[in-house]
Amino acid sequence: MAVADPIARLVKELARLPGIGEKTAQRLAFHVLEAGPGYAQALSEAITGVVRDVHLCSRCQTLTDRDPCPICADPQRDARVVCVVEGVPDLLALERTHEYRGRYHVLHGSLSPLDGVGPGDLKIRELLVRLEEQPADEIVIATNPDVEGEATALYLAKLLKPLGLKVTRIAQGVPMGGDLEYADQVTLARALAGRREI
Amino acid sequence: MAVADPIARLVKELARLPGIGEKTAQRLAFHVLEAGPGYAQALSEAITGVVRDVHLCSRCQTLTDRDPCPICADPQRDARVVCVVEGVPDLLALERTHEYRGRYHVLHGSLSPLDGVGPGDLKIRELLVRLEEQPADEIVIATNPDVEGEATALYLAKLLKPLGLKVTRIAQGVPMGGDLEYADQVTLARALAGRREI
Repeated sequence: MAVADPIARLVKELARLPGIGEKTAQRLAFHVLEAGPGYAQALSEAITGVVRDVHLCSRCQTLTDRDPCPICADPQRDARVVCVVEGVPDLLALERTHEYRGRYHVLHGSLSPLDGVGPGDLKIRELLVRLEEQPADEIVIATNPDVEGEATALYLAKLLKPLGLKVTRIAQGVPMGGDLEYADQVTLARALAGRREI
Repeated sequence: MAVADPIARLVKELARLPGIGEKTAQRLAFHVLEAGPGYAQALSEAITGVVRDVHLCSRCQTLTDRDPCPICADPQRDARVVCVVEGVPDLLALERTHEYRGRYHVLHGSLSPLDGVGPGDLKIRELLVRLEEQPADEIVIATNPDVEGEATALYLAKLLKPLGLKVTRIAQGVPMGGDLEYADQVTLARALAGRREI
């Protein structure tokens, strides 16, 4: 006997989540069932709610339920320094250092020709439009220190330097091949402090 | 800055799942967002659907969307042998051996006085009612080979033997301290074949 169809369906959907295999998905599905209708409803509403209420900030492209997002709306944050990151988790990691008082720009990916990700798939056009509307002095490129992140940094540097912008890269305090999202706060803070022009 | 409220809410709900920490929950939440409304709707509907359509089989207490469940409804399955398991994943693990042709009874837990789980919290009353309605010859106790599972097995043996039932326990082919759900099929099949009266 296999599991009942509704359980199989939930297992299938859960197994589409990153890092969740068939076995883990089954455990999670049974937990949802055992936890009862209250939890299932809360989880289901949280899922539909997040897709309904969260969108991209029209300025920095971060995920937010307001527009502009709290960082873009904060007059205390220096609009003349823009830190470019690959994803929202990277932005959150940098915020946890409490060392950065500028604004952000989220690319939603990195250049990866092998995966068919080109400049048009990232929020680069939005960055150019934004810099035209609200000029900046410095662009801090904080893409991941891996092949794709480095390629993205070089591409952006070539694109932005002719506009008269100072383009910097976070220092290689972050270990090569690592993942920005999981770097510790001290390392990230050092990487920010040691940024150099490229 | 923290994440937007709807994201924080989803992270909180996801982190209530077993084995999912704060960091993993955040990754999953961002994946739901990046995957778009189609996936979010499918996942959300699967969650509400499973709680709406799945209930306990009135005979064996397994999770099913039919009543009686396919195993209890199958005339090919020997109703005179009832295998008692702690949870539905254990039932599924035993089914995967293709060695067992009897019926099941799911306790939905094991005796654990330290966690406040007593006989009244398990589907033991339902087992007695069911055995009265449809008599069996043998009860195979396939609770986990850990402290709680052994205690549950002994409790059930004391309860059922006075009723003139043959009470057996799956053989200790399953390693002590292990988890039935994750045992390989050969080990489980051997454990079934080597069951002995207690």
